[in-house]
Amino acid sequence: MRSSAFKQYFLVGLLIFFATAANAAGQSDPLPSWNDGASKKAIIDFVARVTNDGSADFVPVEERIATFDNDGTLWTEQPMYVELAFSLQEVEKMAPQHPEWQTTQPFAAVLHHDMKALAASGDEGMIKLFLATHTGMTEEQFEATASAWLATAEQPRFHRLYTQCVYQPMLELLAYLRANGFKTYIVSGGGQDFMRAFTQKVYGVPPEQVVGTQFKSQYILKGDSPAIELLPGILSIDDGPGKPENIQRFIGKKPIAAFGNSDGDIQMLEWTGSNIRPNLELLVHHTDAEREYAYDRNSSMGRLDKGLTEAAQKHWIVVDMKADWKAVFPPPAHNPNLIGR
Amino acid sequence: MRSSAFKQYFLVGLLIFFATAANAAGQSDPLPSWNDGASKKAIIDFVARVTNDGSADFVPVEERIATFDNDGTLWTEQPMYVELAFSLQEVEKMAPQHPEWQTTQPFAAVLHHDMKALAASGDEGMIKLFLATHTGMTEEQFEATASAWLATAEQPRFHRLYTQCVYQPMLELLAYLRANGFKTYIVSGGGQDFMRAFTQKVYGVPPEQVVGTQFKSQYILKGDSPAIELLPGILSIDDGPGKPENIQRFIGKKPIAAFGNSDGDIQMLEWTGSNIRPNLELLVHHTDAEREYAYDRNSSMGRLDKGLTEAAQKHWIVVDMKADWKAVFPPPAHNPNLIGR
Repeated sequence: MRSSAFKQYFLVGLLIFFATAANAAGQSDPLPSWNDGASKKAIIDFVARVTNDGSADFVPVEERIATFDNDGTLWTEQPMYVELAFSLQEVEKMAPQHPEWQTTQPFAAVLHHDMKALAASGDEGMIKLFLATHTGMTEEQFEATASAWLATAEQPRFHRLYTQCVYQPMLELLAYLRANGFKTYIVSGGGQDFMRAFTQKVYGVPPEQVVGTQFKSQYILKGDSPAIELLPGILSIDDGPGKPENIQRFIGKKPIAAFGNSDGDIQMLEWTGSNIRPNLELLVHHTDAEREYAYDRNSSMGRLDKGLTEAAQKHWIVVDMKADWKAVFPPPAHNPNLIGR
Repeated sequence: MRSSAFKQYFLVGLLIFFATAANAAGQSDPLPSWNDGASKKAIIDFVARVTNDGSADFVPVEERIATFDNDGTLWTEQPMYVELAFSLQEVEKMAPQHPEWQTTQPFAAVLHHDMKALAASGDEGMIKLFLATHTGMTEEQFEATASAWLATAEQPRFHRLYTQCVYQPMLELLAYLRANGFKTYIVSGGGQDFMRAFTQKVYGVPPEQVVGTQFKSQYILKGDSPAIELLPGILSIDDGPGKPENIQRFIGKKPIAAFGNSDGDIQMLEWTGSNIRPNLELLVHHTDAEREYAYDRNSSMGRLDKGLTEAAQKHWIVVDMKADWKAVFPPPAHNPNLIGR
């Protein structure tokens, strides 16, 4: 019943719908925002092979599992992970109740806008920020907070909602795969509940197909009302080797297609590549400083170093964002709030 | 490619198929193995209400989530949990490699057939047996072992495969709900991988809709081949409060229907009962010593004590197995190996 969020996602949803409808109608190009080239051809050839009933490469519908990383694969992860931006804002909001944060890292760094100290706190610091802002409340409360933030928070460079800094070519790819009987999952390092606050409306991916980093939780009764309380501990980090572990735990089937953009996706692609069925692995390479960002081997967010090397050895598709994508984001007109900006 | 297992499940699968087909054709009785009575009427009325597009009680397809306990709800759990029977046999098989088990409980109890000592080891003992027989191998190896065992292991009283000691009325209920747009999940205390070895073929429930007790796991590379290694530790016990916790983690939606048979299902039914949508909760009460078993408040397996009390207060349906079920198991002829027994 998040009607305000609904309105904001509605037109993106429409776009997915039209992409699907056009595709289902057998119309010309299922991936109109992809330039013709090796990447687009490899995707379309793969889908044709596995859906061709007469072919030796045919894969039954129930095994057409496709897994997508989120940050940097489906939406922008620069200049910082969206969920980190959310956490920083939440820390500022919660700070009055936590005087001790003024002198405790990484909270002091956040409150004093000391980005150098924040960066120095590393992954451990980020986990502390996540635990402080994502737990100690019910899942329902967290979802309401995240949804409210996502409904208005803007990406600082593009001045659009974060939920509109999603990649139009990847929205088309999600819809194209689904139209061909694939079950599309998100398997991402992001918090599972954070992602579930927007994936249905933005990507058409329902909660039960969203696998992310999970916090411990506890069933509680508040009077007569049951709730799931999020506890300040991590149950599973859905990154690197955690991705195939969670794919097996949640899905119990090996994917035949996997999509990522960073070294944290290597194991997911490797696992998918070990499928005895025909399979496809793809990395989005951020090469477009003008329309989005250009980064790879030395980036602190979404580093793609070992992955680039492995991709060459293992024949993974490496999407060159600048060359392969006709458009990066959906047209801005799709957010009525932002028309004219 | 478990072709021997396939053959054995094939006819049970056929039965589910025919139940679905009969139902889809709009033929008379979707639950032929249920006697007319309050339980059957409540189920059919509920399904009619939530699928009636014009009704205020209509529930959109994507929210039609139904969760089923397994042991004692979908198949026989007496005289001991099937998975415990599997574990005992595995302990005997593995004993030569574990001389220390001769003098360590609960293993010594198993090897010396000392059922009293085994019972005395309690839940903790059972967990030790599960860890010893379910972990320390890859998931693929475990699945092969469990599948091979399930293909031949017989229930001691009924002399049928355990996979044929499933409840015919519940197979019909699963098929009936699916034919009405429900997504049917298993949410059970049993080991997730153990259940996934048979749920698709026996219940028509795919791996991604099976939630059970989970062991820790680790992604490993054996040479160039990736695998998921099961580690000797429990990640989540899917029983009692663990059921709603895992429902939220795996599905991210509150069910509108939940089916159980023991006190371990109370929280799942309570959680489902808190849905703002119309909802249905049901407990199978084992009242049929002649055709199956009769047990409730004092049983060590599948105790139903507090649940019976709560059911009365909360208007949960309590199925009286003896009165409500026309048949308990599928006809024996469905297993070609057992014809004439």
